[in-house]
Amino acid sequence: MTTADARKPNPPSKVPRTERGRKTLRKLLDAAAIEFGERGFHEASITGITRRAGTALGSFYTYFDSKDEIFRALVDDMSGKVREAAKDALREERPALEAERAALVSFLRFAREHKEIYRIIDECEFVDPESFRQHYQTTASRIHERLTEGARRGELREDLGEAHAWAIMGMNVFLGLRYAVWSDEAGLEDIADLASSILREGIARKP
Amino acid sequence: MTTADARKPNPPSKVPRTERGRKTLRKLLDAAAIEFGERGFHEASITGITRRAGTALGSFYTYFDSKDEIFRALVDDMSGKVREAAKDALREERPALEAERAALVSFLRFAREHKEIYRIIDECEFVDPESFRQHYQTTASRIHERLTEGARRGELREDLGEAHAWAIMGMNVFLGLRYAVWSDEAGLEDIADLASSILREGIARKP
Repeated sequence: MTTADARKPNPPSKVPRTERGRKTLRKLLDAAAIEFGERGFHEASITGITRRAGTALGSFYTYFDSKDEIFRALVDDMSGKVREAAKDALREERPALEAERAALVSFLRFAREHKEIYRIIDECEFVDPESFRQHYQTTASRIHERLTEGARRGELREDLGEAHAWAIMGMNVFLGLRYAVWSDEAGLEDIADLASSILREGIARKP
Repeated sequence: MTTADARKPNPPSKVPRTERGRKTLRKLLDAAAIEFGERGFHEASITGITRRAGTALGSFYTYFDSKDEIFRALVDDMSGKVREAAKDALREERPALEAERAALVSFLRFAREHKEIYRIIDECEFVDPESFRQHYQTTASRIHERLTEGARRGELREDLGEAHAWAIMGMNVFLGLRYAVWSDEAGLEDIADLASSILREGIARKP
């Protein structure tokens, strides 16, 4: 039981109804991303989050009961943002392989601007294993759907399945770790070209 | 902790000199894999490790000063075991793409038998970030060397670099998470065939 449980009044609706409430919630989630990203779940504190957000402690408890709860909300929030970033990139109709490339570029850009996402998703494996699974299963499903659509349109191989989606996701996640989070040196378009060329033709020398 | 500390080998006094000592150390590391794998770093305890190992607490302190120290030793140990498993698979001379396939099969087999490896390496990102980096950088370097050798022999594209190695490593790690750790259903040879076919020809439909 956290202190949160002791001080919590009857729970109001936790979804903000006013614009001001939405802004406060946004500030808390953004502050939580920095706090958890920098200090890790165990060292992070609720007062650390409200201090960074510039909100009163009471505002925190309007929306969350505990550190666990805002952590889970944050994982959801980040998962959603990655999805949104990809959706923007995929809005335009493109050939299947170009769509995969565009999705990767948008992910790499997002990861470079939100380097804390890796620590947060990775720590989720320990803090909330179910959300961790959920995040990757959802991501793989979206890739799988795109592959199926690409095969239907005759652009991709017909035998592509869930495992191909996991292979592509792994490629993207590790390229992001190395070239978006650990280092800013490489051009993200170059990294995306390179991943795209693996999907287009493999790595064997052409006969 | 500095890089130097993280990479420092056990001081000479701590390397077992007798066969019995080596067995005790092995028991402690195997017990630590289970303890950290099941309970996570924060919940794991030294007495939990010695209980599982069936050794006296004093034996623990013969080889390690702290929970942190055995955790770092364990990451080194697992990293080394993965490397050894791959080395066995690569002993035979094979064409480059078959070598990558063999390395993946050996990794998937290892991960299925030591499912705790993912939790331990992943938690390392938080407990000992330097070892975490080290583990993946070393793995990527080994893949990169094999790619370079394959290109030199005229089997692989000549433009393959570090980023290709990271892409392949990511593919392998995520296939392992999904099909070796989370589920035992898929045939590991099938998963390796599928990854191999991506490297051989990509995912586009043949014209």
